[in-house]
Amino acid sequence: MSRRRHRERRKPAAIEQLPWQLVRNPYSPMELLSVDQVETIIESALDVLEQYGMAYLHDRGREILIAAGAETGKEPQMLRLDRVLVRELLAQAPAQFELHARDPAKNLVIGGNHMVFASVGGPAFVSDLDRGRRPGSYAELCDYMRLVQSLNIIHQEAGGCFEPMDLPPESRHLDLYLAQMTLLDKSCHAYPLGRDRTRDCLEMNAIALGTDIEGLAKKPTVLGIINTNSPRQLDIPMSEAVIELSSAGQVSCITPFTLAGSMSPTAIAGTLVQQTAEVLAVVALSQAIRPGAPVLYGSFASNVDMKSGAPALGTPEYTKMTIASGQIARALGLPFRSSSTNTSNCVDAQSAYESEMSLWGCAMGHANLVVHSAGWLESGLTASFEKLIVDAEMLQMMTETLRPIEVNSDELAMDAIEEVQPGGHHFGTSHTLERYESAFYTSMLSSRQNFETWEETGSKDTAVRANEAWKALLAEYQQPAIDPAINEQLKDYVERRKLDIERSSF
Amino acid sequence: MSRRRHRERRKPAAIEQLPWQLVRNPYSPMELLSVDQVETIIESALDVLEQYGMAYLHDRGREILIAAGAETGKEPQMLRLDRVLVRELLAQAPAQFELHARDPAKNLVIGGNHMVFASVGGPAFVSDLDRGRRPGSYAELCDYMRLVQSLNIIHQEAGGCFEPMDLPPESRHLDLYLAQMTLLDKSCHAYPLGRDRTRDCLEMNAIALGTDIEGLAKKPTVLGIINTNSPRQLDIPMSEAVIELSSAGQVSCITPFTLAGSMSPTAIAGTLVQQTAEVLAVVALSQAIRPGAPVLYGSFASNVDMKSGAPALGTPEYTKMTIASGQIARALGLPFRSSSTNTSNCVDAQSAYESEMSLWGCAMGHANLVVHSAGWLESGLTASFEKLIVDAEMLQMMTETLRPIEVNSDELAMDAIEEVQPGGHHFGTSHTLERYESAFYTSMLSSRQNFETWEETGSKDTAVRANEAWKALLAEYQQPAIDPAINEQLKDYVERRKLDIERSSF
Repeated sequence: MSRRRHRERRKPAAIEQLPWQLVRNPYSPMELLSVDQVETIIESALDVLEQYGMAYLHDRGREILIAAGAETGKEPQMLRLDRVLVRELLAQAPAQFELHARDPAKNLVIGGNHMVFASVGGPAFVSDLDRGRRPGSYAELCDYMRLVQSLNIIHQEAGGCFEPMDLPPESRHLDLYLAQMTLLDKSCHAYPLGRDRTRDCLEMNAIALGTDIEGLAKKPTVLGIINTNSPRQLDIPMSEAVIELSSAGQVSCITPFTLAGSMSPTAIAGTLVQQTAEVLAVVALSQAIRPGAPVLYGSFASNVDMKSGAPALGTPEYTKMTIASGQIARALGLPFRSSSTNTSNCVDAQSAYESEMSLWGCAMGHANLVVHSAGWLESGLTASFEKLIVDAEMLQMMTETLRPIEVNSDELAMDAIEEVQPGGHHFGTSHTLERYESAFYTSMLSSRQNFETWEETGSKDTAVRANEAWKALLAEYQQPAIDPAINEQLKDYVERRKLDIERSSF
Repeated sequence: MSRRRHRERRKPAAIEQLPWQLVRNPYSPMELLSVDQVETIIESALDVLEQYGMAYLHDRGREILIAAGAETGKEPQMLRLDRVLVRELLAQAPAQFELHARDPAKNLVIGGNHMVFASVGGPAFVSDLDRGRRPGSYAELCDYMRLVQSLNIIHQEAGGCFEPMDLPPESRHLDLYLAQMTLLDKSCHAYPLGRDRTRDCLEMNAIALGTDIEGLAKKPTVLGIINTNSPRQLDIPMSEAVIELSSAGQVSCITPFTLAGSMSPTAIAGTLVQQTAEVLAVVALSQAIRPGAPVLYGSFASNVDMKSGAPALGTPEYTKMTIASGQIARALGLPFRSSSTNTSNCVDAQSAYESEMSLWGCAMGHANLVVHSAGWLESGLTASFEKLIVDAEMLQMMTETLRPIEVNSDELAMDAIEEVQPGGHHFGTSHTLERYESAFYTSMLSSRQNFETWEETGSKDTAVRANEAWKALLAEYQQPAIDPAINEQLKDYVERRKLDIERSSF
């Protein structure tokens, strides 16, 4: 984040971008809730777990918690966790940890004042201006992942930027992992739907890092998004993933999907209570499995549009709940995950203002991990090639905004102020000439053309320019180096596991 | 800002919007600079005035300051103001004041944690999707002003949303004032280019409020944007306006236009120093004219695009300088003005993300007055009908974001959480049914349609929907009531002054 780093620009490229960097937010988070209000919400969440309970659908998950002290009642699968037990388990979870990548220079820190930007993950569709919106293919997914690798401001791939619908669902996670480990050297999420998909991720990451599952436990590398089935339920595939991840000392990013008005109460405070209860219910499971297993407090709280019942994202409520969730996460001593979201169906003004509302919520709430921060469109149903570039621009702008202002004699520029007389200008001063290349942020995408030139050159709006940008960037993509032996081992693993899956499906 | 006010929705209208309300930001401002850094910048600005001086091009302005204690040197028109003098004059300026409107229910507070949203002011062009970008006419300006009146979230008109090019430049300010006072009942800016245009504004406001110039002094009503000619110069028309406004106890919103790299040093700290020096130079003049005359510390600091020399707005530097300027203004005890800006040539993603970067800078920097907050496009060269709606949506979203989260038993919703079992949903709970109409912000513009429906209904992007919205809103416009006698007096004044101007031009 220092000026020196900022000055280390890459050699001329089609797209000028900021260098790879860890992003920190050195400013105080915004305090929307008072200390008392945060405490009230946390105590209410503990009441929920103690009095109303949480449904754990997986037998082994329940057994682990019962052994730790959870109470059963008359409803099957429902456990009640008393607040002392929850607090004891919570106290085991780390407030901050390092997250390893295939390239150690791209290791991340999760917690403190760090902000990690992850790509979009999970959509069913892909879109670009040339081909429209469609189910995605593996070849297109690989291109998208090449862009995620190439965009320095994106720290992490999010477990499949969209579904490769031309591959069989039982084994496509293996192709995804192979792409993650050969096309990128950045941190990548798991695809944690059930035991086997999670284990495959652990095994392949161990190969990629030249270690084994035991060795991996010493360096958290695999992060899985664990969604509760709100309200108050953890399903079997997610339970299996928590068990696999936690057992192996890997990261559970616990994220209830609490849309106020449908999956949670029609109220902000009530939604925060339920979200906190659900996060703590899964934190308790993870810590009962392996004390100290890394976890995140994830928030995906927004509201439904009460007219249509549709999810509303990037709303004022979303922004407020993001900032407030950060306060709750910090009070609990957990790193905090949020997202950048929007509901727009195209790369227009709404897609940008809702994403900015989300992103500022993340920055002001000190989100340590911002998932879906680049590429998300259409309430998460689509990954857009153009939105990926627009979002990368917005992330760069936020990163530069969070870089402190320097106040020293060079920056105060008193000599330059004295030198330029009324009526003059600073274009040619020695102060300007020394600094003009790196003094200010260089935009990747924004147009500063005057109207006439802009019209003469085709009246290109942001989406059209982003279309040109991703193509230029893709043309310049360079595959990161990989040890050929590791590459072979990964391929062998995928081949072997595909055979297993094929056989077991008969 | 209370929930109760939020519930008082208007009767069904084409466009559902928030009610008229004063907006407050109850949260702490963001502190980008340390207390010491703020002090260093202020002391450096005082050094600039003491050692390098400021050019005042207007003879009477200089005489007033010399009488107050400013020093002349060998350069003509240049004055040096010692820090004790500047601090003494500054101490006279109020930190907060009420700003009156034609409808007293729309009086504003400038200062404290209040945020006032003003429309765009000053562009040479107007645009909409139907007719493209063109020089504007008076009829179109009146339509634009009707929309400014109709959009509740806009508190203030900004002295001509664009230039009516079909009217003669010498007298078009009179037509503007007449439109302000008959089409709106909100606070409106002056068109303070020189003595006569400013005086006309004072006279006509006195008529509109049923008082005289003496009476007006007891209730500040007229606000003029006073731009310095950076670097370090105050020209004659602006000096005349400061003299007229301050003499009459009206408001000078002092705003240097310091584009770092051209009108100020190629550095953030240096630009803040120069901006602060220029603001203080004009504060000194206003307070020497009339101690206690209301003023604002205005910031319009951004940077040039160092590749093209074009202004870059809504940039990270813009956002940072906005937040830092707020710190400086508060340290000086002055209300703070900033703007919402962008450089885009159309209502696209860039226009929205740059505006959001500006607007969040204003919110985090506690801007008391946000000029150009609705309608601005193309670096301020164009007022867009569609952007007016997009911006109003963004202003509403910011307003709702700044409304505190309530934490009480109704909002904690523990009964609703208990009632809805795992696998269930909150759609039909009594808690939801009681609240669904007003629990969450209702968007004026954003689409929540699913992709298929959106496509079937014409794939309307935000700009197209905004085009429909402003037309619907304009169709519903209702002219605010005015006393017929006052209306006549205003018309007579305009007619008489036009004759004067016509005669004097021979």
